[in-house]
Amino acid sequence: MAKERAGMTEETQYMMDRIVTKEPENVPTSGDAKEMRAVVLAGFGGLNKLRVTKKPMPEPQDGEVKIRVKACGLNFLDLMVRQGTIDNPPKPPLVPGFECCGIVESVGENTTGFEIGDRVMAFVHYNAWAEIVCTQVDFVYKMPEEMSFAEAAAFSLNFVAAYMMLFEVANLREGMSVLVQSAGGGVGQAVAQLCSTVPNVTVFGIASCFKHAAIRDSVTHLFDRNVDYIQEVKKISPEGVDIVLDCLCGDNTGKGLTLLRPLGTYILYGASNMVTGETKSFFSFAKSWWQVEKVNPIKLYEENKVIAGFSLLNLLFKHGKCSLVKSVMDKLLCLYDQKKIKPVVDSLWALEEVKEAMQRIHDRGNIGKLILDFEKSPTPLMASDSTETSEAGEEEEEPEGDNDSKERMPFIH
Amino acid sequence: MAKERAGMTEETQYMMDRIVTKEPENVPTSGDAKEMRAVVLAGFGGLNKLRVTKKPMPEPQDGEVKIRVKACGLNFLDLMVRQGTIDNPPKPPLVPGFECCGIVESVGENTTGFEIGDRVMAFVHYNAWAEIVCTQVDFVYKMPEEMSFAEAAAFSLNFVAAYMMLFEVANLREGMSVLVQSAGGGVGQAVAQLCSTVPNVTVFGIASCFKHAAIRDSVTHLFDRNVDYIQEVKKISPEGVDIVLDCLCGDNTGKGLTLLRPLGTYILYGASNMVTGETKSFFSFAKSWWQVEKVNPIKLYEENKVIAGFSLLNLLFKHGKCSLVKSVMDKLLCLYDQKKIKPVVDSLWALEEVKEAMQRIHDRGNIGKLILDFEKSPTPLMASDSTETSEAGEEEEEPEGDNDSKERMPFIH
Repeated sequence: MAKERAGMTEETQYMMDRIVTKEPENVPTSGDAKEMRAVVLAGFGGLNKLRVTKKPMPEPQDGEVKIRVKACGLNFLDLMVRQGTIDNPPKPPLVPGFECCGIVESVGENTTGFEIGDRVMAFVHYNAWAEIVCTQVDFVYKMPEEMSFAEAAAFSLNFVAAYMMLFEVANLREGMSVLVQSAGGGVGQAVAQLCSTVPNVTVFGIASCFKHAAIRDSVTHLFDRNVDYIQEVKKISPEGVDIVLDCLCGDNTGKGLTLLRPLGTYILYGASNMVTGETKSFFSFAKSWWQVEKVNPIKLYEENKVIAGFSLLNLLFKHGKCSLVKSVMDKLLCLYDQKKIKPVVDSLWALEEVKEAMQRIHDRGNIGKLILDFEKSPTPLMASDSTETSEAGEEEEEPEGDNDSKERMPFIH
Repeated sequence: MAKERAGMTEETQYMMDRIVTKEPENVPTSGDAKEMRAVVLAGFGGLNKLRVTKKPMPEPQDGEVKIRVKACGLNFLDLMVRQGTIDNPPKPPLVPGFECCGIVESVGENTTGFEIGDRVMAFVHYNAWAEIVCTQVDFVYKMPEEMSFAEAAAFSLNFVAAYMMLFEVANLREGMSVLVQSAGGGVGQAVAQLCSTVPNVTVFGIASCFKHAAIRDSVTHLFDRNVDYIQEVKKISPEGVDIVLDCLCGDNTGKGLTLLRPLGTYILYGASNMVTGETKSFFSFAKSWWQVEKVNPIKLYEENKVIAGFSLLNLLFKHGKCSLVKSVMDKLLCLYDQKKIKPVVDSLWALEEVKEAMQRIHDRGNIGKLILDFEKSPTPLMASDSTETSEAGEEEEEPEGDNDSKERMPFIH
């Protein structure tokens, strides 16, 4: 047994043993009406802070919808939550996760628009990674009939973020050019697809080399993250590009601004460079905050440039823009119905495999979205896979500047 | 004579005497085919660096249009040129001015689209304040038949800047709110009019008290520059506003960002706070550059905000966006034809009165645009006007923080 699971962390081993003994697969885990399975983050830190446990099942409050969850999206943001590098997180223990999809099981009082049995996708302010989720009706959207749960879990956050950045913040129009960091990621793939809905848009994608074969057709020009992509882009478009989408922050902010043509917009929508090792490194966090190039508005004036930040979570849960997001979702579902966009799913993971899934995102191994699939059981691994194992579960910091480890292939396919 | 002209600077007196003796009004000053009248800036500094003199008349080069100028726009930017606080100015002596209108007198080779006798308005990279202007055909636009030369000189720069900021940079749409600094100025009045072409837009204007009666109808809410307008705006719109247009820079940048609602856009389009006294104060310039709040992109990310800079001159003459500006001008002329917009002219000035006109802008006395009118002769002043005279012509710096002087009424009406 040890050999077969050599690639797994001890924690996952423990969780699987627990499931096998306590919760045989054939018996629905929701058999106990008052309890549900959920991923719990015991405290901020490494992968070993994550557990799959039983939690009391929530009941919908006024204006809430109760959803039996089928699948959840896993985002880079969830890594930052785990590390505690996100702004103002709730106190652990907490259930992570910001998006899910499933079937409406009941609705609270004063909740209109949804009926029991509706297939829905939803945003949640934490607590998505659980069998049952209750969330405000404003954050719930009906799924198109032909959309699978895996697709729905890959849809909401990535496509809404991509759409709002391109069309609400930056005003993408015919003939423009867009540069997207992490072109192979969930947002990157959504950006590429949305750009193709506007005539004559050139997309410059940055991605690790090993993803190039898989995503080459989604963008116009593709560059290796490790080459000096500024020079390469300028060879093709000497004036620069109209929109730069950056989820990395740090050095890339300055590079992004350099690449903007006049009236161009740089949008920072993530700060994944803050995450260097498995656990929060104060040094790396402070470095990102203080060393990111601060921008003098007078320089923007002289250069006719625009710099923006975009955080969909803050927009939804802090800035109260759910009706705007709803109108964006309507447009996106229209594009989906017209088969103009389709979420790219990287891989499906059982709840108990959340650590391996997170490590895959950390290693930037994914092409498209990682999904936590509530109907999937953990996949036993082959012994040969262990050679690719990352140092998941250890508390050690990665050495500063060790970017190679981020480009490693993931250890689970 | 001395009494009648008590309000004028010695220089103006000198210039007028010169005209009276050398260039009687009835004789066209362009009688000498090889020479023309022009305002010349002898060196960077105070008002006394400006002269009206004769200059060799230019001939149109390849792709240029030669315009007999009827009127020119005078902008705050021209004050900054005079002081040398503008980025990368040409070496003086130079002829200032960036916009003019008049009649096409001839065209260079390979110049199509214009004929002799066409009434046109144009952008010029300096050299606008002269009887004859030659400029690239890309910067020349035909005037509507019913537009006067005074209107045309007030139209181009202000309306194109206002339109591009509202619709190209910030994407103004129905139901949004806009805050504009210097609501009584040329750009401010253009912004207010363009906002009224979009349904249900709320305009918050900031202006000196003495202008309120004149411009109250052009905006939704009007605030005194000297009160804490942030609190006043937040009383009406607690969430803030969608677009902040700031031509002042300095402290106002931070205030503007504070007032932005999520997804809102702050646009810096001038730095008139750089100009404190009549001549360039390095301290004030350095202060503006270094003390303007530099913006951390991570803060923009957390707050979902957008910060932009807009310089129409750089866009035209440095960033080569003349075809985009042309398309904007077409839209504006359409709005003018539909009588939806109409430039606000503050006052007309003879060439020899350029110093008084500049002082009026410096004192922020204008409502709408100041025009240099080539067909106007200097107006002799009443002795009683002298009590309101600013210290025009002196090289002394204003004391730091002396804002009162900027709010004084102009000394020529």
